[in-house]
Formats: sequence, structure tokens, C-alpha cells
Amino acid sequence: MSETASATPLSAQELALMNKWWHAANYLSIAQIYLLANPLLREPLKLEDTKPRLLGHWGTTPGLNFLYVHLNRIIREQDRSILFVAGPGHGAPGVIANTYLEGTYSEYFPEVSQDADGLARLVKQFSFPGGIPSHAAPTTPGSINEGGELGYSLSHAYGAVFDNPDLIAACVVGDGEAETGPLATSWHSNKFLDPKTDGAVLPILHLNGYKIANPTVLARISPEELVSLFKGYGYDPIVVEGDVPDVVHQAMASAMNTAFARIDAIQKAARTEGKTERPAWPMIIMRTPKGWTCPKTVDGLRVEGYWRAHQVPFTDMGNPAHLKLLDEWLHSYKPEELFDENGTLVPEVAALAPKGNRRMSANPHANGGLLRRDLRLPDVEPYAVTVESPGHALGEGTRVLGTWLRDVMKENLSSRNFRVLAPDENNSNRLNAVLDVTNRAWNAETFDYDDHLSVDGHVMEILSEHTCQGWLEGYLLTGRHGFMSCYEAFIHIVDSMVNQHAKWIKQADEVPWRAPIASLNYLLTSHVWRQDHNGFSHQDPGFIDHVLNKKAKTVRVYLPPDANTLLCTAKTCLESRDRVNVIVAGKQPEPQWLDMNSAIEHCAQGIGIWEWASNDKGGEPDVVIACAGDVPTIEALAATQILNEHLPDLKVRVINVVNLLTLQTPQEHPDGLDDASFDSLFTVDKPVIFAFHGYPALIHKLIYKRTNCRNFHVHGYREEGSTTTPFDMTVRNNLDRFHLVQNVIRRVPALAVKAAYANQLINDKLNEHKRYVAQYGQDLPEVRNWRWS
Amino acid sequence: MSETASATPLSAQELALMNKWWHAANYLSIAQIYLLANPLLREPLKLEDTKPRLLGHWGTTPGLNFLYVHLNRIIREQDRSILFVAGPGHGAPGVIANTYLEGTYSEYFPEVSQDADGLARLVKQFSFPGGIPSHAAPTTPGSINEGGELGYSLSHAYGAVFDNPDLIAACVVGDGEAETGPLATSWHSNKFLDPKTDGAVLPILHLNGYKIANPTVLARISPEELVSLFKGYGYDPIVVEGDVPDVVHQAMASAMNTAFARIDAIQKAARTEGKTERPAWPMIIMRTPKGWTCPKTVDGLRVEGYWRAHQVPFTDMGNPAHLKLLDEWLHSYKPEELFDENGTLVPEVAALAPKGNRRMSANPHANGGLLRRDLRLPDVEPYAVTVESPGHALGEGTRVLGTWLRDVMKENLSSRNFRVLAPDENNSNRLNAVLDVTNRAWNAETFDYDDHLSVDGHVMEILSEHTCQGWLEGYLLTGRHGFMSCYEAFIHIVDSMVNQHAKWIKQADEVPWRAPIASLNYLLTSHVWRQDHNGFSHQDPGFIDHVLNKKAKTVRVYLPPDANTLLCTAKTCLESRDRVNVIVAGKQPEPQWLDMNSAIEHCAQGIGIWEWASNDKGGEPDVVIACAGDVPTIEALAATQILNEHLPDLKVRVINVVNLLTLQTPQEHPDGLDDASFDSLFTVDKPVIFAFHGYPALIHKLIYKRTNCRNFHVHGYREEGSTTTPFDMTVRNNLDRFHLVQNVIRRVPALAVKAAYANQLINDKLNEHKRYVAQYGQDLPEVRNWRWS
Ligand SMILES: Cc1ncc(C[n+]2csc(CCOP(=O)(O)OP(=O)(O)O)c2C)c(N)n1
Ligand SMILES: Cc1ncc(C[n+]2csc(CCOP(=O)(O)OP(=O)(O)O)c2C)c(N)n1
Ligand SMILES: [Mg+2]
Ligand SMILES: [Mg+2]
Repeated sequence: MSETASATPLSAQELALMNKWWHAANYLSIAQIYLLANPLLREPLKLEDTKPRLLGHWGTTPGLNFLYVHLNRIIREQDRSILFVAGPGHGAPGVIANTYLEGTYSEYFPEVSQDADGLARLVKQFSFPGGIPSHAAPTTPGSINEGGELGYSLSHAYGAVFDNPDLIAACVVGDGEAETGPLATSWHSNKFLDPKTDGAVLPILHLNGYKIANPTVLARISPEELVSLFKGYGYDPIVVEGDVPDVVHQAMASAMNTAFARIDAIQKAARTEGKTERPAWPMIIMRTPKGWTCPKTVDGLRVEGYWRAHQVPFTDMGNPAHLKLLDEWLHSYKPEELFDENGTLVPEVAALAPKGNRRMSANPHANGGLLRRDLRLPDVEPYAVTVESPGHALGEGTRVLGTWLRDVMKENLSSRNFRVLAPDENNSNRLNAVLDVTNRAWNAETFDYDDHLSVDGHVMEILSEHTCQGWLEGYLLTGRHGFMSCYEAFIHIVDSMVNQHAKWIKQADEVPWRAPIASLNYLLTSHVWRQDHNGFSHQDPGFIDHVLNKKAKTVRVYLPPDANTLLCTAKTCLESRDRVNVIVAGKQPEPQWLDMNSAIEHCAQGIGIWEWASNDKGGEPDVVIACAGDVPTIEALAATQILNEHLPDLKVRVINVVNLLTLQTPQEHPDGLDDASFDSLFTVDKPVIFAFHGYPALIHKLIYKRTNCRNFHVHGYREEGSTTTPFDMTVRNNLDRFHLVQNVIRRVPALAVKAAYANQLINDKLNEHKRYVAQYGQDLPEVRNWRWS
Repeated sequence: MSETASATPLSAQELALMNKWWHAANYLSIAQIYLLANPLLREPLKLEDTKPRLLGHWGTTPGLNFLYVHLNRIIREQDRSILFVAGPGHGAPGVIANTYLEGTYSEYFPEVSQDADGLARLVKQFSFPGGIPSHAAPTTPGSINEGGELGYSLSHAYGAVFDNPDLIAACVVGDGEAETGPLATSWHSNKFLDPKTDGAVLPILHLNGYKIANPTVLARISPEELVSLFKGYGYDPIVVEGDVPDVVHQAMASAMNTAFARIDAIQKAARTEGKTERPAWPMIIMRTPKGWTCPKTVDGLRVEGYWRAHQVPFTDMGNPAHLKLLDEWLHSYKPEELFDENGTLVPEVAALAPKGNRRMSANPHANGGLLRRDLRLPDVEPYAVTVESPGHALGEGTRVLGTWLRDVMKENLSSRNFRVLAPDENNSNRLNAVLDVTNRAWNAETFDYDDHLSVDGHVMEILSEHTCQGWLEGYLLTGRHGFMSCYEAFIHIVDSMVNQHAKWIKQADEVPWRAPIASLNYLLTSHVWRQDHNGFSHQDPGFIDHVLNKKAKTVRVYLPPDANTLLCTAKTCLESRDRVNVIVAGKQPEPQWLDMNSAIEHCAQGIGIWEWASNDKGGEPDVVIACAGDVPTIEALAATQILNEHLPDLKVRVINVVNLLTLQTPQEHPDGLDDASFDSLFTVDKPVIFAFHGYPALIHKLIYKRTNCRNFHVHGYREEGSTTTPFDMTVRNNLDRFHLVQNVIRRVPALAVKAAYANQLINDKLNEHKRYVAQYGQDLPEVRNWRWS
């Protein structure tokens, strides 16, 4: 049942000490935002002591600081492993202040020592050029979540505790953040948590009433609605409310006691009595003023407990009244009682910090790379599709991949460090085989006819791309591994989350004490060219454009043309670290081109001539036909075959690209081909007809520095489509074999006259296609049954 | 209070007729999915009558059909204007069947007539090449929402009813869809609805228990939790549950009666008694089997009421048992009793359809362009910043824009057809002035110290980019106008929604009876170069890359360099139709370049030489310095000034780009400059140093077809940043004046030796900058106070 905690578990002395810690953290937070020097106010505060640009966010900070000291009490008294996930990561001054007070900060950054010198560095560096950013970041010890873009804290927290039975993620959710879509649905993560083999999340709704400039929705509905909402989400909320610190300290201590006792009871029931039905997990609702303890008003305007406290409550230090106000505000925390003459936190307060790795800022799960163990990855050879000669056998790429993933899952089940995720698309994307060895995680009602649901399943499916992504990020950041499949078009739903994760990886890489984590691996399927049950809304190959704007070191894009290359690619991705890997591959039966040896060779190089499809060996090609993607590869080869048949003298070189970034120069991307190799492949002057999976301009963007760039003619998705036949999709976008041939004829000067008959034939074929599909609803038999020969 | 409706409001005859309509709609839905011909089964069903590719979604369809006939009863009996928003738009066979049964379909598509011939066309065209897509689409009468990408139905529905007091949007939300983040938060839209001046939304949760291959979360929590959740969201749920059609018909009729009566009571209280406090709006929870009325099992496997009913419940018509099953299934609806010998719906059932525009499929709000009235747009001149000479006055672009938007709001307040939206960033983005004439919409608790909140406000702020976007789309699609501001980096949150909207516009444009709607207008500010309070997570200018993948006709990108050009651009956007317009502009005080006349001229052309900044007139330039974006323009001009001072003989041409798409060729984009003009501006062989707001590769992608493309050297965002000074941001990304000058020296052959001293000076300056910002935390005075001269 929900309740307002009312017991008084803290002794007067304990309360006083905890309040001092809170004061110290608040003091240092304000000092970071405002001060350039004089951090202990040992000299009278002068304008020159303040920063010229006052940046940062005070409003959320006292709440975070309050929670931090209360969580520390629990850790100390109960010896727990707790991760602090701050949704309002803009409260970094507070998070950093606490990590400093508990000593971790100085261990990671020795120059920011626990004395007056260190304090001076601490305050100056914040939001300062060459210093540290204004949000929780990879440089913030104990953090796995920046919170710069709001909405993901709770799914990160759940991701962190999956398969970490001893870990509890205390997740502070801003009441503004709670309005975001991703956050609003992530409360349902409790239906995917196993109380036995997973840890627990303690969500703390930080109901400070405001966001940047508006009240929050959750602060302005009735208490009944509020509690009803969270009960509806399956939680058992404990409300802590007030603005008198001593009262709220007692209430919070009591709430924490209750919450952790309930977590213990739930876990005990699950672990010793086998009671794994979904319990109502505790959560805390903390309703306290925004900017708590700052000046009530400034220049006659309401600040404390109002949105005006959100960033810097008052600026313009040139105004002596403001400087005075700052001075008074800082002194209100009595720094002289908090820090000794060396500028070190007084020992009785410092004693409130947990020890060693029990400090939330030193929790090893927050530097997951340290805990990461490599996956056991089966060799791909046994899963290979047999390819006697290129293009004869059909295979379903993703289904084959599923068999390998099944065994990856099997090999690592006992380590419990690998999960496969999809937004209700795992089977649609044909990775069903994974369910042979594990189930879908599900801790809600089940019926006997249900299909592979169990509390401890390692396949995660919720119809929320955001939640899948957030879980996976949390899982990876705490040192585990994962693989997510998604319809190609809808992965754009997480564009912004991927941005943030890629940025995190890039920054973490620059932090010496952060260890590499497993890559974020995507399989994008049900792609633009094969949207059989769906239509135009499901056709968008632009996610690869999106990720390529991130740091080159971080991103990879693979377009394996068949099952064996898909297998090799997937293995490469699961072996890699600190990357965002995007694999695009179809799920439909398609011709298979390479036997496993050739596939391994081809994938290792990432790009190459397909000699068996080319006829220019020993000479110069008249035209290069390049392809990237499974469907484009089919069309490119079919075009080549038409050319061979109708224009047998034409010398055609066929190039297939698996690793898209080989197209860039090595200066732009670590996988980029050097110019000499590129020129040798694509020639310096011959026309290149490029059949591409995505939007054509992407290729032009990748190759604009190459010698032969002006002779590239790219066919790809031109944003035309509907529910139609597979081949008609290519025709509507000029990616089909016939349009490719037509372009070859147009671009190879020697063909201008000679190819008139071939051209005529092509036009006839296109008309025939159009009439046939409109009548029969499927592709021409010669297209449907086409095989390379 | 929630309840399971139990009254029996329908007479036996009425019930029988409604059930027949439902059967007819179900029958036609299945016929669309399965049949190529023989739609009335007047001949024995043969394999050739079925489609070779069976595409579409049955599972959701009977539920949609059920709701449709019940809503029709309400419309008929109560003469209401109702819009049908189908979250599960994949149930298009059902939606189309109903629009056909009520006659609208044949009015729009005369060849699909209400007879046997028309029926044959109806069934064949579905999911068929050259026919119609498998989802609700612009071709679907009565639809404003495709539902292809799930999650947006409810925010669309709210957007549709804002300022439409007589409209009720009946919004069917799939229980899978309800798991998405955007949907999960959009329930809170009720806190932004004015019962007096807005219409109402009747959400109907379609609890059919399953999504593609999994049960849904909401179907597997306890009934108490379920009701608690929706009460917490502020609704008053009415539960309708069952699988016996007659029983559920009565329960649904009763639920509808109750729900609409409550809506009436709420609206009456608001409209006649002035009671506008937020009421608990009714909603319906319909718990019925997925695929209701299809075969219970197929090949021994559970289908009805299970996920297997989601798409096509059984395929492989070559299997005679399956063909027989289909035959039996179709006959179970007794088509011979539903359609007369002409193939026309029998009159007593047809009589259930509402008349004329009361038919949901003919509701004019669903073809909003028809209702659209142009905005009254004030001239921009009176809002101009005075610019005596370029670059002296400072101005805050977005704040100035705010004054104009205030008056746009004022001029159109009485028409109630314009809203300004932002995810809690309206003031942060400095559009505060709008609040002088209206308030923020807010129908939750308020306090006397609240700031511009009122029930009927026309500024919409919720901390959900998704919800803002969804509301705006719904508002535009129903014929109104809007303007949304957003932090540049976080607009990626709605990447995928923008995709879908752009696709809708593109398709609607191809539907002759759809009238143009107002454009989707964005102001992106708090952009990558000026993230003062924030850091790396807030730095991403890639949204413009994203939108440029959509159809050229639909998208525009503007980078006004100052306040006056921003004003002109905003007006152009609000005047335009059927577009997605993206304006990127800073909110900080910046030099102003153009007086209003020059601004109008410059914006009309979209690109042009800034003669006053160039010194090549009458001759040939040695170098072109181009710029796009406010910060790049400052750096480009500062670089030009350094060049003028230190290399006075160098002929520099300065070009500014406001309309980014002028860079493309006219074949690629309607705004593209012709080649001759482009060559004349950028020369055919001189180096072009391009200072660009976004990721540099975007420029290369836009100009790859231009003669001089290889001589473009683009400086832009290289994914480097943190919380630092504005100028340091440019330095970290080589966009600053010094790096621009260095590149000029490098690229102009004649300067190679001559410029050694200038180069040295540049290096000194960069070092000085670095030391200065690290010490003082702000930019060098010469940078901070720099003015063009
Ligand atoms: C997705 C997203 N949209 C907008 C912002 C801009 N923003 C920064 S802080 C903030 C308000 C946050 O309010 P809340 O979550 O309540 O945090 P607190 O009150 O604790 O500061 C907003 C809108 C953001 N960071 N992320
Ligand atoms: C955002 C998004 N993710 C994934 C899909 C793929 N998808 C299509 S239908 C569907 C299941 C929908 O379930 P529900 O909303 O319950 O609809 P119904 O059961 O009525 O078919 C899914 C996951 C989608 N269309 N949109
Ligand atoms: Mg808040
Ligand atoms: Mg469903």
C-alpha cells in the first residue's frame, strides 16, 4: 500500500550528520556553478571569484544530493551494491559533489584532491573550457547515463540489473522526464524482471514540481490519481513529501528502510521459496521543492520551489545585491563547519561515505567494461549454407543467422551475459531458433498455450523500440553483450538514443579509466525492398545515413549480400568493442552467392571483385557494376547477365561491398580503402553503375574524395513505394536489372549506337512487367525464378 | 467509476442488423486479403480466385469493424461529427470495408462501385500492385493516420479536436501500440484539453491480447491494475469484455451510450456552466479475441484469440484443406444475406450508415485541407531589426521572431487555428512574446503564482517531443496551422514521426481529392554552436540530413543568418503548404547583417553574394568564402576581415546561403539553382571555403553534380564538443575564422609562400585562444567584441 512514511528512524545525531553531508553537497554544487576561485569563502567573496559565464542547473541538485546521502546510509548499514542512475543528469554538480565527498573523484582525478587546492580545481573545472561538462558524463564516476537527453534513465536502470541479482539500481526520474514517451512506457519494465536472477530497480520519482519553465503534469494531478497511476504500472509507491529538511530526512529514511526491506522480501521469496510471480515492487515518490534551500525570491520574484530555480537561480554578479545574495546563500550551509582547515571534509561527516567499491561512484557495474567477459562465440562454418556454385541455392539469411545466435545464446547461458532483443519482431525477423534454448522474458500473467514465455528468458520483446534500446544500453554499459533486431524503417524511432550512446562511447574512449564495452549491434531487416505485408511507411533505409554522422571510429555499417556473409558479419560485430554496428540484411529466401570460405575472405576485405561474375580479367573493364545490399546484389548480377547475353563484348567488372565504410578514405574512416586500391578497383575513368540498398546520395557522400567520383551513377531508394511485389519495388525506384542495364548503355560511350536493340528489349520488358504484376499480383516468372548462370 | 457495461440498449432487430453490418465488414475484409476474384462466392471458390501473395492483417480487423458499426449507431441516433482514428492502421481492410459499405469509397473511387463489379475491384486492389496499400493511407477516406508506425494515434486524435469543439475523435489504440513510448505518454493529453473550446477524444483501448507474436502487457496485468492505470491517467474507463457477439454488442452499445452521455455532460458543464476544471473523460476498454470470428484452429494450431491471427491466419491456398477452410470461413458470414443480386449491400443493413458528411469516412476534418483557411500574416517589416550597416547592431533572432509570432497569434486568435508548440522550451527558445497574447494550454491544478497557464491557451508545452509532434500533425491534418520550436539536437527524437508525416504528404499529394494542408514548421534553435548550459549530448545538427532523404518536393531547409532573414523565412514557411520546413537559427545575441529590404531580397533568392563583404567585383575572385548558418556566417566574415587586413590583394567573394536546397540542381530539388547560375556564383575552378552549420558531408552530398564540386572545402561540425565557450566550439571543429583563413592560404596557390606570416599569426592566435579560455572561461575580448568593419 502507498503511504506517507512517518516513522523517525534516524537518531538526532545521525540526522544532523546526514544533513551536514547534504549541506556539503549543496554547497559544493553551488560553488561549482558559481565560483572560479575562493571555494571555501575564506576570503570575502569578490566578483572576480565568480565565473564570467554562469552555467549549469541548480534546480534538481538538492534533490539528488538528498537522495544520495540517504542511499549512502542504506549502503553503509546494509552493505549493498547500489548504482545511482540520475535521470536529471543535468544535476551533475550534485552528483560530482557527492563523488568528491566520498573520495572517489580524487582517486580518479588525483589533481582534484580532498583539500583546498583540489576544491579550487573542482569548482573551476565545472562547465569550463578544458574542464568537465555540465551533465553527468563518462567523466563522472559511477555514472552510466548522461541524462542530457531525458527519458532513458529507467530503461537504463532495468538494463543494468538484468542478470545482476545482487545489484540495485536507484533510479531518479525527473517529473519532467517522466512526461517523455520513452520514460512513460519504461515503467512497464517490471513485467520483464525476474526477482530471482535479476537485481532490482528502485525508481524514485523526483516530484519537484517543475521542468524548465512549466509545472509538471505529475505534480498537478491529484494525489489519488498519482498513486493510482503507479499502482497501475505495477508499483507500490511510498510518498515522501515536505519542505522542512528534518522532517523529510526522517520520512525519507523511513521510506528507504521500507523500500529496501520490501525488495529483500521479494527477492527472498523468489530465491528461497521459488515465488517468482510479479510482485508490486516498491518505488518512492519524493515531493520536495525545486531548488530546495536556495533563496526564496530574487529581485522580488519567486525562485525556490518554482521553475526559476531550474538553471542558475540568479546571475549578473556585477550586481552587488546578487553577489551578496550568493555570499549569504553559500554561507547558509556553514562551510566552516563542513571542511577543516585543509579544506577536507570533516571526518565525522566523511564517515557517512560507504567504503571502497560500495561507494556508488565506485560501483564496478558503472564501469562495465571492467566486468565484461568475452562471449564464447561458435565458429560460423558449421552454420554455413552450402553454395555449390554462386546463385543457385536459396537461403533465408536471418533464419540462418538465428541458428548461430541460438548457439551463441546456448554457449553463454550459464554466464548470463547475452540477450537478444526486438520490438515484438524476433520471429517476424526470423530469429526464432533462439527460442529453442531460451524463452522470452515475461513476468506477467501466462496461459498454458503461451509460446516460449518465462520469467528468466533471455529474449526481450516489448513493443517499444525505445525500451528495447534503453534496456540494451543499460545491459552493455554494465559489461554484458546483446543483439537487437528491428524493422529497418522503425529503427529511426531510436535515432536520438543511438546518437547519445555513440556520443557516450566516443567520450568514454577519451577517459583513461573507462574500460571498453561490448558494441551495440543491430540487425535491420524487413527492409525497404521486402515489405511484403506492409507498405510505404515501412520503407526507409536512412538509418545508416544517420549513424554515419557519428564519430567514424565508433560506427560500422555492413550490407552482407547473403547468409554466409551475414554470419561472418554478425560474428565480427559480437567480437568488437565500443562500436555501433549496423547490419542490414533481408529475411526472405534469396540466392546465395558465396561459400563459407569465400564469405570469410570477402568479409575480411569488406569489398571485392566477384571474379566469377566478371569478364574483364586480364584487361580493363568497360564498366564497373557495383552493389551493396542483398536485393541490389541480385539486380546487379541479373543486369550483368543481361549484358553478357546481349552485349557479349562488353567487359564488365562486378564489385560487391559488404563493409560500406571501405568506400571512404582512410583519413575519414579506419576501414576506408586507400586511394590506390580504390582506384584500382573502380578505375579512374570508367563508368560505375552502383546498385545500392539505401538512398543513393549516401554513396556520393562517401566517395566524393575519390578520383573517379564523377563517374559513379548510383541507383537506390528514391522514396517511391507501396504494398507491391518485390521486383516492382526495385522498378519503381530504378534499381531493377533493366534500369541498371539501361544506364550501362547510356554511360558506356561505345554502346551508344550498338545497343539500340538491347535498349528496346529492356523497354519491352519493363512494360511487360508492369502489365503482368497488375494482372497477377506477382512478379514475372522469369524474375521470380531467375538464377545466376 | 469503471464498470462492465451490462445494460441491453439494443432491440433484437437492431442488434441483428448491426451484427449483419459487422459480418459484411468482416466478410469484405477477408475478401480483400484473400480474393482476386469471385468476391461474392457466387461460383465455387477456386484456387485461381485467391491471390498468389496473401498480404494484410486480419487480427485487428474484426475489432475495428465492431467499433465502426457501434460508432455509426451513435452518429445516426445523436447526429454527431466523429473522426475515426485507427491506431492499428494495419486493419485497413476493415476500415476500407466500412467506408465502402457506407458508400463514401465509391464516391471517391467511382470504379469501385457498390455492385458486383465494384466489389471485384475492391477485393483485387487491396495490397496489390497498382492498387492500394495494406495500411490506412491518404487513399483511405476518413483517415488522417496511417498507423503503419505505431504510437501516434492518440496524440493525432487530440491534435484533431483542439479548437474543434463539435468534433469527437474516436481513437482506437492497439494494446500493442499502447506499449510504445509515444502512446504511453500521450494519455496525458487530457491535461491540455479545454472542454469548452476543444472537442473530445474517446480513446478505445483495443485489448485483443496480442501483438505480432507476443501477448501484450496490458492484457496480462490484473483488471485492478489496468483500471488503476487509466484512472491514474485521468480517465474513467468503461470495460467491455467478451467473445459472444450478441452479448458484446449490447455491452458495447451500453458503453457507447454511457461514454457519449458523459462527454455531453462534461461539455455542457463547461459550455453552459463555465465548469472547465479537468474532468475524468470516459474511455472504453474493449477486451475481445484477436481475429475474432476466424477459424479457432488451423492445422491443429490455435488461431482465433491468439497471436497467430495477427496477419493472414492461414496461407498456402494450394492446400485444398486451406481452400476449404477459407470457403467455410467466408460463408460463415452468409454473404448471400448481406448483398443483393447486384452485389449491393441489402438496404436494411445499408440504412445503418450515417448520411453525407456524418459518415466518418466523409468527415471533412479528415480531409483538413478542405477546411483550411489561410492565416492572417502580418508583414514582417515592422518587426525588423534596424541595421544601419552590416554587422554592427546585435540582435536575438528568435526573440525578434517571437514578437512577430505574437502578432500572428493575435491576428488569428479569433479564428482559433494557430498553435505554437515546444517541449518545455518555448521560453528557453526565446519565443516568450507569444505569451503576451495567449497562455500555455493547461488543464490541471494551478496556483496563483503560475505563469501564463490557462485552459484555453494556444501555446502547447509538454516535455514530450513526440506528443508535441503528434498534436501538431493532428492539428495540421485537420486543416489548421502551427509552429514548433525545439532544441536542434533533440528533434531527432521525432525523426521517425517526421518521416511518416512527410510520406503522408507525398502520398496525399497524389490523391486528387485530398486538399493541401499547412506545412509542418520547425524552428530548431539552442543549436550545436551555442549550447551554453549544456554540452556534447545537445550537439547534433543532423536533423537536416535526415529530412533531406524525403521527397524533394516536400522538404525545405533554411539557415537564416540573422533576425531579419529569420522573419522573412518564417513568413514563407507559414504561407507554404504540404511541406516540412526546417529553420535553424540561434537564440543568442548576434551581429545583424541585412536590413529588411536586403533580407527580403536575399531570402527570395535563397543564396547570394554579399557584395559589401566581397572585394572581387568586376574581376574574378581568388577564393569564394561561402557560409550557411548564423555562427558560420560570423566566422566566415571574420575570416574575410582577417584576409582583407593581412592579404589585401586577395580577391574574396562572400556568398551566403539561406535556402540550403538552392545548392542542389533543379533536377534534384525544385529550389535548386540552375548550373549556369551556380557556376557563375561559385566559379568553375576557384577554391570554395564553405563554413557550414551542420555536418560537412551534407554539403558535398548536395553539390556532387556541380562543376566545381571538387574545389569545395567544407568546415562544419565534426562531432567534437563539450560545455565550453561559443568560440571554442568553433575552434574544436575547425569552423572558426582562424582555421578558415588557414584553409584559404592552403587552397589558393598564389598564397603558398606569401602567406607564411599570416599563417604564423593564425597559429599564435589559436594558441592564445586556448590559453585564454582555459584561464578565464570566456572568449578572448577580440572575439567576444568582434564586429565586422
Ligand atoms: C528529451 C529532452 N527534451 C528536452 C530537454 C531540455 N530540458 C532540459 S532539463 C528539462 C526539464 C527537466 O525537468 P525534470 O525532469 O523535472 O528535471 P528537474 O526538475 O529535476 O530539473 C528540459 C525540458 C531535454 N534535456 N531532453
Ligand atoms: C513502432 C512500430 N514498431 C513495430 C511495428 C511492427 N508491428 C506491426 S503490427 C504490430 C503489433 C501491433 O499490435 P496491436 O497494437 O495490439 O494491434 P492489433 O493486435 O490490433 O493488431 C507490430 C509490432 C510497427 N508497426 N510500429
Ligand atoms: Mg522537475
Ligand atoms: Mg493487440
